[in-house]
Formats: sequence, structure tokens, C-alpha cells
Amino acid sequence: MINLALFGAGRIGKIHANNVAQLASVNLKYIIDVNQASAETLAARYQAQCVDTATALHDHSINAVIIASPTDTHADILIQAALAQKAIFCEKPIDLNSERVDECLRIIQQQDTLCVIGFNRRFDPQFAQLKQAINQGKVGQIQQIGITSRDPSPPPIEYIAHSGGLFRDMMIHDLDMARWLLDEEPCEVYANASCIIDPAIGDQDDVDSAMVILKTPSGKLCQINNSRATTYGYDQRIEVLGSQGMLQANNNTATNLCFSGGSGIIHEKPLHFFLERYADAYRLELAYFVHALQEKNINCTPNAYDGLQALRLADAALLSLKKNAAVRL
Amino acid sequence: MINLALFGAGRIGKIHANNVAQLASVNLKYIIDVNQASAETLAARYQAQCVDTATALHDHSINAVIIASPTDTHADILIQAALAQKAIFCEKPIDLNSERVDECLRIIQQQDTLCVIGFNRRFDPQFAQLKQAINQGKVGQIQQIGITSRDPSPPPIEYIAHSGGLFRDMMIHDLDMARWLLDEEPCEVYANASCIIDPAIGDQDDVDSAMVILKTPSGKLCQINNSRATTYGYDQRIEVLGSQGMLQANNNTATNLCFSGGSGIIHEKPLHFFLERYADAYRLELAYFVHALQEKNINCTPNAYDGLQALRLADAALLSLKKNAAVRL
Amino acid sequence: MINLALFGAGRIGKIHANNVAQLASVNLKYIIDVNQASAETLAARYQAQCVDTATALHDHSINAVIIASPTDTHADILIQAALAQKAIFCEKPIDLNSERVDECLRIIQQQDTLCVIGFNRRFDPQFAQLKQAINQGKVGQIQQIGITSRDPSPPPIEYIAHSGGLFRDMMIHDLDMARWLLDEEPCEVYANASCIIDPAIGDQDDVDSAMVILKTPSGKLCQINNSRATTYGYDQRIEVLGSQGMLQANNNTATNLCFSGGSGIIHEKPLHFFLERYADAYRLELAYFVHALQEKNINCTPNAYDGLQALRLADAALLSLKKNAAVRL
Amino acid sequence: MINLALFGAGRIGKIHANNVAQLASVNLKYIIDVNQASAETLAARYQAQCVDTATALHDHSINAVIIASPTDTHADILIQAALAQKAIFCEKPIDLNSERVDECLRIIQQQDTLCVIGFNRRFDPQFAQLKQAINQGKVGQIQQIGITSRDPSPPPIEYIAHSGGLFRDMMIHDLDMARWLLDEEPCEVYANASCIIDPAIGDQDDVDSAMVILKTPSGKLCQINNSRATTYGYDQRIEVLGSQGMLQANNNTATNLCFSGGSGIIHEKPLHFFLERYADAYRLELAYFVHALQEKNINCTPNAYDGLQALRLADAALLSLKKNAAVRL
Repeated sequence: MINLALFGAGRIGKIHANNVAQLASVNLKYIIDVNQASAETLAARYQAQCVDTATALHDHSINAVIIASPTDTHADILIQAALAQKAIFCEKPIDLNSERVDECLRIIQQQDTLCVIGFNRRFDPQFAQLKQAINQGKVGQIQQIGITSRDPSPPPIEYIAHSGGLFRDMMIHDLDMARWLLDEEPCEVYANASCIIDPAIGDQDDVDSAMVILKTPSGKLCQINNSRATTYGYDQRIEVLGSQGMLQANNNTATNLCFSGGSGIIHEKPLHFFLERYADAYRLELAYFVHALQEKNINCTPNAYDGLQALRLADAALLSLKKNAAVRL
Repeated sequence: MINLALFGAGRIGKIHANNVAQLASVNLKYIIDVNQASAETLAARYQAQCVDTATALHDHSINAVIIASPTDTHADILIQAALAQKAIFCEKPIDLNSERVDECLRIIQQQDTLCVIGFNRRFDPQFAQLKQAINQGKVGQIQQIGITSRDPSPPPIEYIAHSGGLFRDMMIHDLDMARWLLDEEPCEVYANASCIIDPAIGDQDDVDSAMVILKTPSGKLCQINNSRATTYGYDQRIEVLGSQGMLQANNNTATNLCFSGGSGIIHEKPLHFFLERYADAYRLELAYFVHALQEKNINCTPNAYDGLQALRLADAALLSLKKNAAVRL
Repeated sequence: MINLALFGAGRIGKIHANNVAQLASVNLKYIIDVNQASAETLAARYQAQCVDTATALHDHSINAVIIASPTDTHADILIQAALAQKAIFCEKPIDLNSERVDECLRIIQQQDTLCVIGFNRRFDPQFAQLKQAINQGKVGQIQQIGITSRDPSPPPIEYIAHSGGLFRDMMIHDLDMARWLLDEEPCEVYANASCIIDPAIGDQDDVDSAMVILKTPSGKLCQINNSRATTYGYDQRIEVLGSQGMLQANNNTATNLCFSGGSGIIHEKPLHFFLERYADAYRLELAYFVHALQEKNINCTPNAYDGLQALRLADAALLSLKKNAAVRL
Repeated sequence: MINLALFGAGRIGKIHANNVAQLASVNLKYIIDVNQASAETLAARYQAQCVDTATALHDHSINAVIIASPTDTHADILIQAALAQKAIFCEKPIDLNSERVDECLRIIQQQDTLCVIGFNRRFDPQFAQLKQAINQGKVGQIQQIGITSRDPSPPPIEYIAHSGGLFRDMMIHDLDMARWLLDEEPCEVYANASCIIDPAIGDQDDVDSAMVILKTPSGKLCQINNSRATTYGYDQRIEVLGSQGMLQANNNTATNLCFSGGSGIIHEKPLHFFLERYADAYRLELAYFVHALQEKNINCTPNAYDGLQALRLADAALLSLKKNAAVRL
């Protein structure tokens, strides 16, 4: 039996708690949240105890922690947990500052900590099958990748204000996806962006529409586009062109119903909400983490290094936007 | 807490046991199967007890039974359970003989038994949404329905021999679907059929390819086609034409990946196996049954009357095939 | 140079005149129509002469005739033209009375007349490719065919009154398609039908919605559905299931534009008007006829026998509807 | 009657000659080509005369010229034709040197020459409908555009050597499309590219895979990807995201046939050859030119200024690639 401590009883913490509850041989022992009411509600639901950080980390029966607290607390909890010899599942990003992430990485490496970062999209069944098909040579040598990643509507402005900006908050998922699919570290990053959807986002010195081009040493090219709003839901598509063909991952819908009428042949919009679109991915990433823990597989991915590299790409994109030139890595 | 007894520890019994285990406030207390080994394996998995029929039905703590035993035992268990005041979830068909089903229905009515028949497709999310859209007037007045229902490959010949034939074994699902969507009892049935896939099926005096036309008193028409084999998987499509438009329910696939290469633009085949295609439907029908039981909703559907009517349509189709003429109901 | 006489300067006559004008080495010499004004307008456009039937048929320079006059004049012109040794392109149906068509066929055979019947759909590029793929063994042995054929809206009631009814006027195209694709003469026909769209059609003793099942001696099954109205345009689909796979011919659209917005993912409706949907087919059937004439290929198809057989199937469907039983042929 | 002189009897000259022949009230009088045999063959086919440039341009009956000769002769013929008061249809690019194009533009403006540049894609029915829908406000304010433009296979190396490189030869079409759809002049261009398909292309100091980002003053972003080879045919897609929704122009196929079999659900590949894919566009651009000439519409587009601006964008892309930085225009 694996005993878990969950840091964070908010939206994403609840998702993890529910997924943990489905896993045999895992016990959600502690929930830690500064918001006591949230912690207690969630703890009651899963027969867990509300404790403070120190209690959780000093309990030798605790094998692992899930860090789903606010971003600015991630690094601190992660370091304490690593020093306390716990396995770590940490929501992305580890921190918005890459030096701080680098520090976390060093400690993880010193402590031989098993650490998985919550780049959940790698666990989406469709994207996982895309990756597997690439690995099996289905498209041959990769030449071009295109990633479209658009939110149905912008988050609240207060969220934007503390998000680290579109590149570190939103595109970081796509940058991780690009690294993973390219199977080669990008060496050049160019970004351009606008605030064209909501001026309030621009007031926060952020952008709401962005395009990026990545290039790898072997010459693979990758383009990403991000938007904070569509009228048709959550748009998550990937296209991989290789020497043997093209693979496209398309949007998921609730059903395959189609209506033909006076205004056309109408298919369903993509699943609207990211928690719904990636429900399987959230479930499968936790199962993977637990499995890695059971197998003591310290080489599991995406790990803290992946977290660092995605952040570096996001930082480079932001720098590129400021310089209006490509940034070499 | 609802206490359940499950009759039948075979393939479909296992599905139900697993789905019951997901439901809070339901306890799978007993498993009954003449195959003691199967019963015990399944019981061990879900902390249930293996008992005989009498024990299960005489236990006053048992609120409901699931009948997933071989078809020829359904009616007998159903009658005993009804007389013992248990709520009943019974796999289709209740019996291959419509007089026997009629007898079951009478007892159910006399006993005010809450009874749901396992026409699982009504609970498929896509078909349920289709039905809901029809009810909301999306297609206006229904004029024509088309149902395509094709298995990926024929069942074993021994299964065919005791199946009651394609109409009572396979098309019965489509006939129930037709009744449900038409929202009007068909009054004419015509069937034609062939054994064109596997002569061994013909040796059992059965057919492997069939087409049916139904007509309702108001003039709605419905065509159904069945085949025991395709090369491309399990083909389950429905098309409804009405005065305001057409709704089509299309096949489900594992993912929406698409490959473009030298041999074309290739999408995934439909989910191959019926247990996989209808996994949600199996889960949701049980949840519906339990909910009906909690709400004491005796008017739940599909019920024994639906089971009887679908069987009558199947019998009429078989008679039509023999007479080569439409059969009036 | 082939000299042609065109009988009929109406809607379909104009289509043929225009297609003839595109063909090198064909001269449209005469146009014959009782409506003098129509004849003259069309003749002026293509530098043809307006004459009467006798003049046209007695002119030895005339090699061929196109019969696009009203249906009840087809047989008479066809017989005269055959006796005058002209090659014949005749719009379907030759006549609404199968005995009269049989008489035409005998004369055609006696005179060794090259005769093509205007079952234009055989010349549609998509359906022609479907047929070719079947011939090449793409689906293996055919087991089931499904034909959906629905008009966007009913013709005027005066047209209905003289049309011969849905089976002889509309479904005859689908019956010819079925014969052609099945590559085997159907031996059983069952039809059911309703007047459920417009009661005025029923007042003409006709139906507006129909379903048919055909069976061939080898056991192939074919289902056809017809409707006089949809809200989404002209619906022309074919599905062929065989031992090796399924081929589907889908609707054609003007472009492949797709709009994603608040009300869904919207594709274009099918081409609305049959003259637009089958523009290529009308052009190609004429080119085929002229080519057959140049090659003196008297075995060209679809010929008068095909016209007779399709009519017999339509008659059998009508008889089946009245008897509510299958009709054997 | 408009009298035309056609410069160039090669592949594209033949296309134009054939399209001109379909147009009533246009007479193809002269064909001029240094390859005398080609000129005579084509002239014979369309009852035209083979003459030299001076004869053609000094003939006062000649109203217009079509310049479809090798690229390095375009500017010279264009200037002579403009000075001779002829209307001009000129294949893209006018010249590979933007200063030379600028010179052409000045003369055209001085002479009030009616001039259309052969950016044929603007006349593709699908793209034209896309543009019209944008103009009608279907997507609201444009935020992002994505253009995918991939050839089925690279041209011969000799062609590459004199092509001006991928940006000026291939992407110029997409840059014109971007300008046209954005409806605003891009002010920033960034390009990255690789030679990853065929090293022989790299030996010519050219690239075979490229990605570009454009930005307009109002903040619209546009990404383009080009590839010299796919395994699945000619890939020509456009996606426009706006405040009200997204429009996608998808690939065209010969038919809508679909095969379902053991290896998946297989749709047709896109039309393979650009002359086939854009056959309608070649026909419609000529019709537009002739119509503009009849209407004396000197403001027709795409004109020489459009030709210049597209070339400037291509030059900027090439410069950006060398600098690895965005180029401001």
C-alpha cells in the first residue's frame, strides 16, 4: 500500500484526489491546504486527514506527495519533499523562475528522487498513440510539426496577472509536447504575439494570441499557435509531417452525432473544458506515477528536467518576442 | 444500501459485477452460477458469497437480482425473483419463446415488480443523445429511420445453434432501437435474408445477412440491415430523417488520429468488440436500474413489455422471411 | 461529322444541346419541339434548324437522335427513329407501360439499333469509380447494397400526376443503379411506402416516402430508400458491403469549406439541384453515346433492355406495395 | 472580339490557350515562342499564327497579351506590351528582382495598363468563397491565419537552380494569399527553413521545408508552412481564426468515395497535380482578365503592385532566414 499526501485541495487537487481513489493499493492519507475548509471537505470525501506540511513530510509511512498547490509554493514543497525522501508528482510549472527550477532539479538529482511533472497531455490516449506511431516509424523521419492549442475563453484577469504570461502558463504545454514529439532538443526559438482578443490582457503586459517556430539541430521545424479564445470550444490539434506520411490528432467530441439541416451538415464542437478534454490524461498520469513508484523506476518522464527545459523554451519565446529575433539555445 | 444477487458469472456477468462495484450504496452480496469455479473466482474478486438460487431469493436483505445466466434460465429465475419481491435486471431476451415471455410479463405486473431489460444500446451516450434530440424536436416529425448493425465476425457455430437465430439473437437489439426511436409501435414487418457469409450458419438453418422494413400506423418507415461479418470492425450506425432534418449516429473509434500516406487518408476503424463499444452503455444501464430502485420508479424502461414487443417483432420478421410477405401485427 | 436531331427543347433538352456543343465532330442539325418558341430559341443558340419529326428522320445525313421530349412521346419517336436507321439516345423512361417498352425493344433488336437510355447516374464520376472498384474486386463478393436517394423538395403536383408515380419516376434510377452494381438480376422485390410529407401527393394516389428490398438468386440483398423532400438538399448516397470491405459513395458539395462556430462544426450541404449534382454525368453520357456511335458499338449500355428491366422492377415494387408481399420476378 | 497574343507555348501556355478557346468573343491570334516547334503545334491546334514579338505587339488589332514565357523574359515582354498599349496577363513572378518589378510597375502606372498577375489561387472557387465569407463577416475580426502548402514531390534540380529559391518560387503564392486574406499589409516577416528532404536541393543553396510568421500592424498573425514533398499528394489548406469563428479550406479530392476495410477507413488522397487541383482557377483567372478588359476595369486585382508586394515578402523571408531575425517592412 502506497500512502500519499496531497498538497492543494483546489480544482486540480480534487481531480487528483478522485483519480487516486480509483487506484487499488494507494491510500490518500493526508490533505494539506492553507484553506482549511477546502482541505476538510476534500478529506472528508476520501477519508483522509488534514495536517500541516511538516506532519505530512515527517510521517515515514508517506511514500509520495502530489503537489497541486498554488504555483509559487511548488518549489518549496518539492524541495522539502525531496529532502524527506518522498516520491513527487508535481503540477507544472515547478516555478516560473528557471533558476529556481534548476535548483529543484539539482536537489532531485542529489536525492535520487522519483519525480513526475504533470504535463498531462503526454498521457492523453490520442497523443500517446500519436507518439507511439511516430516511434514505430509510421511517418518516417519527422520534418514538420504543427500544434494548434486554443482555449475556449480567457481565464480571469487576476489569473492572468499571476500566470507568468501566455508562454509560461499556456504554451508551456505545447512546448513540452513539441520537445516530446520532435525527440530532439530545439536549438532555435522565434515567437511573435499580439493582444488582439481582450485589451485587459494587454494591460497585464501579456498577449492573447501567439505563434512560435522552433528548429532542431537536424533541421526539423515546428510551428505552434495559441489563442486565449475561440467560439467553438477547446481546440487541441497536432499534425506531424514526415518522410513517410502525415499523422493528425484531431479534436475530441462528446459523441459522433451529426445533424443535416437547412444550415448545413453540423458536427459537434470539441469538448469545451480542459478538465473534460483531458480527463483520461489526468487519470493516466497518476496511474503512471504510482506504477513508476511501485517499480522504483527513477527514469520516469516527464520529469523535473523536462519541466526545466519546457520553461527555458517558454522563456526563450518571451525573449524572442521582445527582441523580435530568434533566440538560440 | 442495496443488496444484490447476481445470477451468472460468465462474460456478461463479469461486466455487471464490475459496474456494480463502481456504484456507491450498492453491495454485491451473492453470486449464483452452476459453474462453481466461475462463481467463486468472481465472488472472491468482489467480496461476494457463492450461494444457490433459493438462498439468494429467500434472503430478505436482497433487494434486487441481476439475471445474466444462460438465456434458457432467464424466465425461471425471473419468475422466482418476482414472486420473492425482488427488483429485476434481466439480460435480453427474457426467453426465446414469446408465450413464455408473456407469462413472465403477467407475473411482473401482478407483483408490481420493478424490472429492467438489458437493451443496453438505449443507454449508449450517443444513442441516448440522439433520442433526446428527437424528443426535443430536432428532426421534426420522423419519416424514415435506417439502422445498420453489423458484427465484426460471426459467433461460434455452437452459439448460433442455440441463439434462436439472427432475428431473435442479433436484430432484436435493432428492433428495440427502432421501437424506441419511432416512438410508435410498428404494425407491419417484412424481412429478407441470406446465408452468404458462412455456409455453416446456413447448416444451422440460420441466416447471416438480413434486411427488414418496418412500418408504423402513421406511415413512418424503418429499414434495418444486419450482417454477421465485416472486415472493418463493429458497425453500429443509425440515421433518422424527419421533416426538419436528419440526425446520424456514427461509429465510435478509439482515437481521432488520421494518417495520410501513399494509400490514402486513413481514419481508425470502429471499436471492434461490442463490450468495448458499449462499455459506457453497460455501466449506465446498471446505474439507471439502481437509481430506479432507489426512487421506486416502477415505470422504468426498457421493461418486460419492451422485451416482449421486441421479441414479437423478431418472430414476425422470421415469419415474414418464411412467407416472403409482410406480417401485420 | 455526326449529325444529330434533338427532340425536345425543354429543361433536359437544353442540357443535352449544350453538352453536344462541347463535342468536336458532332453537329446539332435539327431541333424538334411542338413548342415552336422553345425550339427556335434553342436552335438559334446552337445554329440548328427547327423542323418537324418527319423531316428530321427522313434526312439521310442525320446519324442519331436524342429523345428528350415528354415521356408519352418517347416510344413513338424511338420506334420511328429505329425504323429510319438512326442511332438513339433516349431519356428514361422509354414509356411508363412495360409492354410498350417491350415492343420498342423488339424493334430495336430487329433493326440492330444502337440505343442508349439516359440512366445518367451510371456516368457520374463517383458512381463510375465505385462500379470500377467493385469490378476490380475491391469489396470482394457483394453481400449488401444500400441506396439513399432523396430529393430536396417535391416536384409540382401536376408533374406528380403524370409521372407514373414515385417508383417509375424516381426510384427507377435507383433500381437501375441496383441492377448495375449487383451485377445480377434481382429475383424478389418488396416495397413499402407512405405519403407522410405532403397529402397532396397522396391525393394523386402516389407516395412520397418509400423503402424497397431486392434480393438476387445468389442471395445478395439491396435496400433502397426514397424521399421527396429533405431540408438539407439532394441526398444521393450508395453503400456496398462485400466480403473484403465496404465502399461508400458520399454526397458532393460545392467546396470543402468548413466553419467552426458557436453552433458547431458546419460543413456544406450537398449540391441542391439534380442538374448541378449530375452535370458531369449528363455530359459524360452524351460523350459515351457519341463514342459508341463512332465505334459502332451496338453493345453499349445502359440500353433499351436495361430500360425495360428497371421499369419491370418499378412495376414489381408498385405491385408489392399493393399486395404487401414480395413479388418474384 | 478581343484579339490575344500568347507568349510561351509550354505547359502553362497550353493551359491558357485551352482556356482562352472556351471564351466566346476572344480570339487567340498569335503565339510567340522561341521554340518554333512548340509554337506551331499549339498554333495549329487553335488556328493561331506563329509570329515574333515585334509583329505581335505592333499589330493594332491585338488588345491583350498573355505572358507565359520563361520567368526571365517576363519583365521585358511586359514593358514592351505596356508601351504598345496592350492589356497584360502576366504569369507570376514578374521578375525575381524586386527593383526590376518596381520598374515594370512604374511603366504600367504611366501607361494606365490593365494588368493582371497570375496568382491563380485567388480564383480557386473554394478560396474565393473563403475570401467572400471573410468579407461578409463570417469569422468576425481576423486574428490568426494558417496556410499549409506542400508539393507532392520536388521539381527537377535544374528547375530549382533557376527558380529563385523556395520563397520566391513556391511560397510567393502563399504570401500573396496571406496578403489577400489578411486584408492588411504585413509589417513583420520571420522565416526559418531546412533542407531535410533532398540534399541535392541544399546543394543549390535552397531549402525544401520552410515556416514563416507574418504580423500586421493591427496584430493579426499568420503562419505558413511549405514542403517540397509529401507521400499523400498536393496539400493545400487554409485556416482562418477570427473573433466569430474559424473557417477551414480543405483539400479537394477526385471523388468522395470511402473504403472501409482491414486497414482502416480510407478516403481519397488530395488531387495530386497542381494543374488538376487548380484547373478551375486557371480557367477563372483568364475569364476575369477578359471580363476586366471588356469592362475597361483598370483596378482589377491581383495586379503588378500585388506581384511586387508578394515578391518583397518573399525577399524579406529570405533575408530573415539569413539573419535569423524578423524583418520589418
